Amino acid sequence: MTATRSSAGIPVAVLLCVLAPAASVARAGEPLPSWNDVKARHAIVHFVERVTRPGADFVPEPQRIAVFDNDGTLWAEQPMYVQLLFAVDRVKALAPQHPEWKTTEPYASLLAGDLKRAMSSGDEAMFDVMLTTHSGMTTEEYEKTAREWLATAKHPKTGRLYTQMVYQPMLELLAYLRANGFKTFIVSGGGVDFLRVFAEQVYGIPPEQVIGSSGKVGFELRGDKPVLVKLPEVQFIDDKAGKPVGIYQHIGRRPIAAFGNSDGDQQMLEWTCDGFASHLCVYIHHTDAAREWAYDRQSSIGRLDKGLDEAARDGWTVVDMKSDWKAVFPAAK
Amino acid sequence: MTATRSSAGIPVAVLLCVLAPAASVARAGEPLPSWNDVKARHAIVHFVERVTRPGADFVPEPQRIAVFDNDGTLWAEQPMYVQLLFAVDRVKALAPQHPEWKTTEPYASLLAGDLKRAMSSGDEAMFDVMLTTHSGMTTEEYEKTAREWLATAKHPKTGRLYTQMVYQPMLELLAYLRANGFKTFIVSGGGVDFLRVFAEQVYGIPPEQVIGSSGKVGFELRGDKPVLVKLPEVQFIDDKAGKPVGIYQHIGRRPIAAFGNSDGDQQMLEWTCDGFASHLCVYIHHTDAAREWAYDRQSSIGRLDKGLDEAARDGWTVVDMKSDWKAVFPAAK
Repeated sequence: MTATRSSAGIPVAVLLCVLAPAASVARAGEPLPSWNDVKARHAIVHFVERVTRPGADFVPEPQRIAVFDNDGTLWAEQPMYVQLLFAVDRVKALAPQHPEWKTTEPYASLLAGDLKRAMSSGDEAMFDVMLTTHSGMTTEEYEKTAREWLATAKHPKTGRLYTQMVYQPMLELLAYLRANGFKTFIVSGGGVDFLRVFAEQVYGIPPEQVIGSSGKVGFELRGDKPVLVKLPEVQFIDDKAGKPVGIYQHIGRRPIAAFGNSDGDQQMLEWTCDGFASHLCVYIHHTDAAREWAYDRQSSIGRLDKGLDEAARDGWTVVDMKSDWKAVFPAAK
Repeated sequence: MTATRSSAGIPVAVLLCVLAPAASVARAGEPLPSWNDVKARHAIVHFVERVTRPGADFVPEPQRIAVFDNDGTLWAEQPMYVQLLFAVDRVKALAPQHPEWKTTEPYASLLAGDLKRAMSSGDEAMFDVMLTTHSGMTTEEYEKTAREWLATAKHPKTGRLYTQMVYQPMLELLAYLRANGFKTFIVSGGGVDFLRVFAEQVYGIPPEQVIGSSGKVGFELRGDKPVLVKLPEVQFIDDKAGKPVGIYQHIGRRPIAAFGNSDGDQQMLEWTCDGFASHLCVYIHHTDAAREWAYDRQSSIGRLDKGLDEAARDGWTVVDMKSDWKAVFPAAK
């Protein structure tokens, strides 16, 4: 038997033992440095201390499951969900093979660059755009296309890559939880295949810890070669009541911490905070029009209305982005 | 910030660093002690050494995904799948609430103790028994029922608990792979909820690393209390071509090692061994009528026919239980 070794030939277990204490000390100096030292940060740190210290609230490591919505919770969702902007670019790229789109809504409006008018065709029509642009290729072809798009497409307002539109305080929170024995999961209404293209690199969350909406997939042999093909049929919608269902189907146990930003996360928070004696439910409230966007009860994207009422009623933590966060996005490179 | 601590108050990171080298040395003395030192063991050890050592075949830890079928691969599946025996006992327990079962097949035969006759009603009828006995309760009620059954029900031939009908050499293999940085997953045609009740305790595989067939689940509020209810509808069948699909949907990347024992695992092995340059595909061949059961091409349970041909053609490893394993089951307690 060979011990696992790093590329330098040093056993990885030894490297970890050498590096871990140093890293812990560095982190212990200032966890969550982009969080102002006020109420929301206190609630998070207090919760983590309670479940990791011996005592009545202690939770064994395997049960320290933390779940995060993605759009509006880990990265920006304004002026439009990133994956929908990807779909729009796919429509443009695929248009030459679909001459009928020139006269079919919502495709015609999308090709004309009028996203607003396209969306007035209704949710079902836009859903059809998502299915159409996310099927008809192998899973490997899809991954390559999404990876290339994310490496080059820029946010219309900031000019940043979308993967730089992530929230710095949430990156710190993910790292802080993992340093305290939590396993972190994404639970998104977005497509699981799209999320998995960047989640490991950007959030440190491996593909097997990403839960999302999905289409059906078929297995076929092309000659001797087995391939998986993305089909234009819905497998699962991971939103609203679908979120606790998706968590149960994928993780098989109830989280002890849940983070969201919209009414689409409400059931996930309800289910999480009805479980263990120690639990943490957090809403990220978009209150910062200067550094990000300010929206809640009236927004068509990421509406937070009923959830805000329930948070007040049930004592969930509400993060006020404007006053709780020292920085919103990572410093530009 | 508090460092993660064990219940004795010693930081877990420190404990790990103290314990890890000792454990590694102990393991390094004799990995896979229940495996005879012949061809199959050589293939496994050689593969693990290649992917963990620096060199052309090195595979980074996050990509060291190993997938295992359960019935017939990790535990015995004769004379009948364990979960089906659980379902039969559920039919008996639920019979008072279903007087109509006395005159309806296959329920009438099951209640009369004639499993063979019940099964002659066909796959669809037995499938209906599985759906009926695995729905109509909350997920927590189901878990409790399955847990209690597994704690007491005995194997009809050996009188052992079913959780003692696991294969000792496979327990060692799971531990050996994990000690070398692999993440181990179950990928079973059986019900994911049933598997998750015992997989962590018996195999060291947490619920989030169990993939299986599943029924639909509904979220509802009972008063203020959110519950998940098991519905009598199929969500996903994780068998044959469903196995690579299930792996893709759940893990999101291709395994580098796959272990099965029947034609139901063939596509999972095909997909695994068409991926990375370094890969390992293994069939467990039931050849030991004295210590377990001997069956393959003609068996209605765990048929291994086409898969055996493909294994020979593609150079997959075939474990001959009779000659490769020093012991089959763990020593009786």
